[in-house]
Amino acid sequence: MDHLVPTYDDVLAAAERLGPLAVRTPLIEQPALNERTSARVLLKPETLQRVGSFKFRGAYNAISRLDRSRYPGGVVACSSGNHAQGVAAASMICGMNSLIVMPRDAPELKIARTRRYGGEVVTYDRETEDRDAIARALCAERKAAYIPPFDHPDVVAGQGTAGLELMQQAKALNAVPDVVVAPCSGGGLVTGIALAVKHLNPATEVYSAEPAGFDDMARSLASGRRERNADLSGSICDALMVATPGELTFEIARETLAGGVAVSDEEVRAAMRFAFTELKLVVEPGGAAALAAVLTGKVPVLGRTVACVLSGGNVDPALFAEIIQE
Amino acid sequence: MDHLVPTYDDVLAAAERLGPLAVRTPLIEQPALNERTSARVLLKPETLQRVGSFKFRGAYNAISRLDRSRYPGGVVACSSGNHAQGVAAASMICGMNSLIVMPRDAPELKIARTRRYGGEVVTYDRETEDRDAIARALCAERKAAYIPPFDHPDVVAGQGTAGLELMQQAKALNAVPDVVVAPCSGGGLVTGIALAVKHLNPATEVYSAEPAGFDDMARSLASGRRERNADLSGSICDALMVATPGELTFEIARETLAGGVAVSDEEVRAAMRFAFTELKLVVEPGGAAALAAVLTGKVPVLGRTVACVLSGGNVDPALFAEIIQE
Repeated sequence: MDHLVPTYDDVLAAAERLGPLAVRTPLIEQPALNERTSARVLLKPETLQRVGSFKFRGAYNAISRLDRSRYPGGVVACSSGNHAQGVAAASMICGMNSLIVMPRDAPELKIARTRRYGGEVVTYDRETEDRDAIARALCAERKAAYIPPFDHPDVVAGQGTAGLELMQQAKALNAVPDVVVAPCSGGGLVTGIALAVKHLNPATEVYSAEPAGFDDMARSLASGRRERNADLSGSICDALMVATPGELTFEIARETLAGGVAVSDEEVRAAMRFAFTELKLVVEPGGAAALAAVLTGKVPVLGRTVACVLSGGNVDPALFAEIIQE
Repeated sequence: MDHLVPTYDDVLAAAERLGPLAVRTPLIEQPALNERTSARVLLKPETLQRVGSFKFRGAYNAISRLDRSRYPGGVVACSSGNHAQGVAAASMICGMNSLIVMPRDAPELKIARTRRYGGEVVTYDRETEDRDAIARALCAERKAAYIPPFDHPDVVAGQGTAGLELMQQAKALNAVPDVVVAPCSGGGLVTGIALAVKHLNPATEVYSAEPAGFDDMARSLASGRRERNADLSGSICDALMVATPGELTFEIARETLAGGVAVSDEEVRAAMRFAFTELKLVVEPGGAAALAAVLTGKVPVLGRTVACVLSGGNVDPALFAEIIQE
């Protein structure tokens, strides 16, 4: 493969590049969650990030490094909705146009927010159309740069800044995470975080949390090669349905992750309800996957210090209303 | 009056007493809110506090100072729901019983959570019964201490720790608030905060935010004497309906507050929707009053640095579902 594998230094450089543009999301602790889990749980709510998910970090880190003279047409990206918003917002800050290829069944809120950040949206059918082919054609036609959702060293390093902050903030609380768990789609977030976490404390175990049926990362870690999911749609976690881990992200994951766990739609809904009732945080389904892994004990939490990433909060009001009233 | 007026030193002592028992809630900034208001808005989400509102601070500061041998029956309090939870949780930590007198129409979630924290709940009718008389009788009968919801120096000093943190956290961001605004019922929170804020930066303007029709603090500040509201119920802000400011809190308020503003139910609902969609925070109606004052420009925000307190997040799922879908 021709990717350069990013390092801890790339994460530091990304943090420098992002400067104050990314929100330094807090690391928060809620007694009700500690009591419920018999653990010390430190939450990193990337729900509070610019655009409502961690995706701004990687998108800005990649887009701000582009040689604009080579890409007069700006940038093109494929996304179910959070990378879309991250790319649109980062492009606007960098003064570039953005065009995002989004599945027709993406949450309305995500499509509307992408447009609000200045993104032009083209939709496709998840089951029958090839989003990568659509994106490639648009890049050629427009002389635009393609910003992958996860499998790119600048994107991974950018997402890793969440892990860097997490470790700095834990240290300020005199805490060393025994376990870090983050939601996983293609793996950009969890591997970026792992780069930072494992450099700063090699003993910390990093886990990916995926939807049941879309646990390609967990199965790939178990088998040692990139596994594919049987389905392309069908989870409540609209943000976490990719076919297979990235080449680059899997290469990092096999070196740094302790393992992966899968959570059911019901477990995700229960985690979202818990976040509403006890944490007073709005978390979208995919964003709650790691919290579901913590609440169900699918990652080993008992008596340990656990850092849990809430990766996004962009959920349609109707779905959120349904879930909190169950 | 026989109250001792608390000082900045009392706030410092309360912070010492609370130690790590209260959550040091973060001070957060969201680009979407800054853009919307043309201001730099720093949010202090006490929604993330133990029990879901700031009320734990004052309750614990008061209860932990009690001479237990004098109160074998524990503590008694009157509350529409947030003070109830604060008192119940603080009493449990201190190993004392708690009995809370709550209005029959208090949100179900607040009653259930008060019981979960070990509080015994007695209900009364807001329109026809006198909660203070009920509480006084129970205190005598049980040899219990009465913990007022706001008009007590230990309660005010405890709530003031939110203001102390706010100023420390703003300083760490190299920010000095020009304006601080907090929701106001009897005035314990906003006057406690004002004690800390005005000591640390006398030029900062502190405002109370109340529901329209229940703006007794605003009118009292304007007239120079404690005014009463015409109604005892009827606002969506279940947490912010008292008849008149406290004696003690009004005495502090007239020395420290720049003024008070009133927000309508519709403005509160819009603020809750904004918090859901853009901030990804669950805020209850009363907890969103200051945010409503900021979003409507009823406090002077343009071009200024504004600290805004979100005081609580204990809202029934059905009401929250209705509001976010409007």
